[in-house]
Amino acid sequence: MTITTSFTTQDTAFVQDFRAMSAFGATENGGVDRQAATIPDGEQRRWLAGLLEEHGFTVKFDHAGNQWGLYEAVPGAPYVVVGSHMDSQPTAGRYDGAYGVLAAAHAAFRLAARWEAGATAPTFNLAVVNWFNEEGSRFKPSMMGSSVYTGKLELEDALNTKDAAGVSVRDALDAIGCRGTYEGPEAAYCAEIHIEQGRSMERDGVTIGLVSSNWAANKYEFVVHGEQAHTGSTVIADRKDALLGASMLVVAARELADRFPGVLHTSVGQLNVYPNSPVVVPSRVNLLLDLRSADEAVLAEADALLHARITEIEQLANVTVEKNHSHSWAVTPYQPEGVELAAKVAADLGLSNKEVMTLAGHDSTNMKDIVPTVMLFVPSVDGISHNEHEYTTDQDIVAGLTMLTEVVARLCDGALENS
Amino acid sequence: MTITTSFTTQDTAFVQDFRAMSAFGATENGGVDRQAATIPDGEQRRWLAGLLEEHGFTVKFDHAGNQWGLYEAVPGAPYVVVGSHMDSQPTAGRYDGAYGVLAAAHAAFRLAARWEAGATAPTFNLAVVNWFNEEGSRFKPSMMGSSVYTGKLELEDALNTKDAAGVSVRDALDAIGCRGTYEGPEAAYCAEIHIEQGRSMERDGVTIGLVSSNWAANKYEFVVHGEQAHTGSTVIADRKDALLGASMLVVAARELADRFPGVLHTSVGQLNVYPNSPVVVPSRVNLLLDLRSADEAVLAEADALLHARITEIEQLANVTVEKNHSHSWAVTPYQPEGVELAAKVAADLGLSNKEVMTLAGHDSTNMKDIVPTVMLFVPSVDGISHNEHEYTTDQDIVAGLTMLTEVVARLCDGALENS
Repeated sequence: MTITTSFTTQDTAFVQDFRAMSAFGATENGGVDRQAATIPDGEQRRWLAGLLEEHGFTVKFDHAGNQWGLYEAVPGAPYVVVGSHMDSQPTAGRYDGAYGVLAAAHAAFRLAARWEAGATAPTFNLAVVNWFNEEGSRFKPSMMGSSVYTGKLELEDALNTKDAAGVSVRDALDAIGCRGTYEGPEAAYCAEIHIEQGRSMERDGVTIGLVSSNWAANKYEFVVHGEQAHTGSTVIADRKDALLGASMLVVAARELADRFPGVLHTSVGQLNVYPNSPVVVPSRVNLLLDLRSADEAVLAEADALLHARITEIEQLANVTVEKNHSHSWAVTPYQPEGVELAAKVAADLGLSNKEVMTLAGHDSTNMKDIVPTVMLFVPSVDGISHNEHEYTTDQDIVAGLTMLTEVVARLCDGALENS
Repeated sequence: MTITTSFTTQDTAFVQDFRAMSAFGATENGGVDRQAATIPDGEQRRWLAGLLEEHGFTVKFDHAGNQWGLYEAVPGAPYVVVGSHMDSQPTAGRYDGAYGVLAAAHAAFRLAARWEAGATAPTFNLAVVNWFNEEGSRFKPSMMGSSVYTGKLELEDALNTKDAAGVSVRDALDAIGCRGTYEGPEAAYCAEIHIEQGRSMERDGVTIGLVSSNWAANKYEFVVHGEQAHTGSTVIADRKDALLGASMLVVAARELADRFPGVLHTSVGQLNVYPNSPVVVPSRVNLLLDLRSADEAVLAEADALLHARITEIEQLANVTVEKNHSHSWAVTPYQPEGVELAAKVAADLGLSNKEVMTLAGHDSTNMKDIVPTVMLFVPSVDGISHNEHEYTTDQDIVAGLTMLTEVVARLCDGALENS
């Protein structure tokens, strides 16, 4: 493999580990398929455990399947928690989540070595975390492990969640040996680094994104109800075609995004048709529809327009649309003192940077609600993500690691105490 | 059970058998789920074999899983083939196909009794048939068994066809013990009775439909290709959303039907999304789209409009649309001498009747291409079909049986010889 010669030995070790890690669940087209608690996820977790233990970290699994690598420098003190998630979407890229866990581990190794060399002593302990099931493709909801840790989701509800084949989180975690009894460390601060999954940093030629807040989102599960009929013989006026109604909803979602260009993102990622037979008019379609915006007023206006359109679609397609589940979050800031600290670190390191919002959810979105949290981005080439062609340059992942290491160093040193 | 007291003992026996038969694969809501070569399909086939054998018929399975009940009155003579199919869609009605097989069996029992009583002697032998996999929901294509029998589909291609779980027709037929070695009888004529699956006969107050031809149809499997992306963070302009393109196609199909009201039927019954994850923009959607019309010029015009619209959709949704499979058939008449024979029988029996076209495909659509074939309909209440609430009154199913018996009697007597 070719690794830039300007890298330090530690940087090269990181890039080598990144490539080794990307072999777990590797797909033919250079991506990964490592859905939560599958065999490749389990194998990768054992690999990470080995790496952490080699560097003197104690590895524990908590009740919700989160994997912790603990370095206790100050007996009894709370922890700076740093990490992300190693699970992936099906046919996903190698960077999403996994980069953040490995960067956290390597940052921690560098700091542990620094402390052991006696140069400085930290105020807090350090925990590397690999959150369980951030992606939510196999088991819903997404960000499951961090939601349990932060008290937003009941442990029992998480463990009882089943995948499409009827396998529960409890059984899936047991099958890969990753359901533990650890309660998790007491957190004082949190940091996470992730790829941007958009184009804005690449466009502006910036290496480090300082995440200041998340977009607001309204997420819905709609069930469109029609009636089974013969696709050939039933006259059109008699049809109650659930798929027609669902398709009109998919189109309506895009039309909303086009109405608020650049400030509203909409999508339908999952859609299931019943009975899904060539010659039967579908009687039921379940679909997941999201609206996201940085502007809560726009989101509210778009949401009202969507609901008005649903009433029209019920008439036009002769169907009923049921709202089965909904889940919303507001624009929430990451702690400004954390953004300020990160900006200072970037300036000290000479890394170009800017403040960005995150459009995607992350485990840090949960963590920032319980402790001051710093969220960092590195650029995504062409903004491609949730795709096997997701890519970030070696230079950028190494720069991100350097940045994360220094942010975590300062958090461990108590830089945000009394701020 | 309540059975109309004006029925003969034979009529009552038929209605009782119909109710007994409807227990195989019965669903909670009064319908059936008896997809091809499933356990309920196999159980029902054994039940039918018992019924046929009780009445002195020889039961054989051919290579393609078609079930034959043979009554050889004239050694060496060809057969009048009468039947339909007992497999169903998932959550289907009790009448579609199954009514036609049971009516064929009872018509044959009545004729065999008549011949054995010595009243008349037939010119042809008589074969009751239960065609394999007419519905095509588990294994595609539909009308599989009659397609193999009529030489339109290679036996090996049929046997190698797999369902969504990867089970082949060969293995599924072996599992229910219904793959035989019989070559099938030599057919001279064919008759089939079926529910209309539309409202036209009910609207006109007619008991017997004399099917004169089938609607023309163009059936397509389209694959819409986009690219995986993050549903939240990927900017709208960068998205290549296969589900958006597919949804526009579903809407376009209905818009075409609305443009040719009453003379064009369109539908999308099956649609599958990949990767079908909540937070991934779909990269691929496979869907089955049908256009049907009694007017071939309308069908051709609609088809051209559809293809022009597909080119627009490729631009609008930033996707490509691939035509994976297509299958077309023209308006084809049933033999006029058969329609005329059936009209005469109905008049003789005092049964109200009219000529109708079939919008749905039937096994007789295949059979009419190799031998003169009579296709009969009885009304469907509210036109409901491929639905658990599919219903035809006992009066109508008994009238249809009377009609079918007399048509088959005359076919067996050589009424269409030299016509």
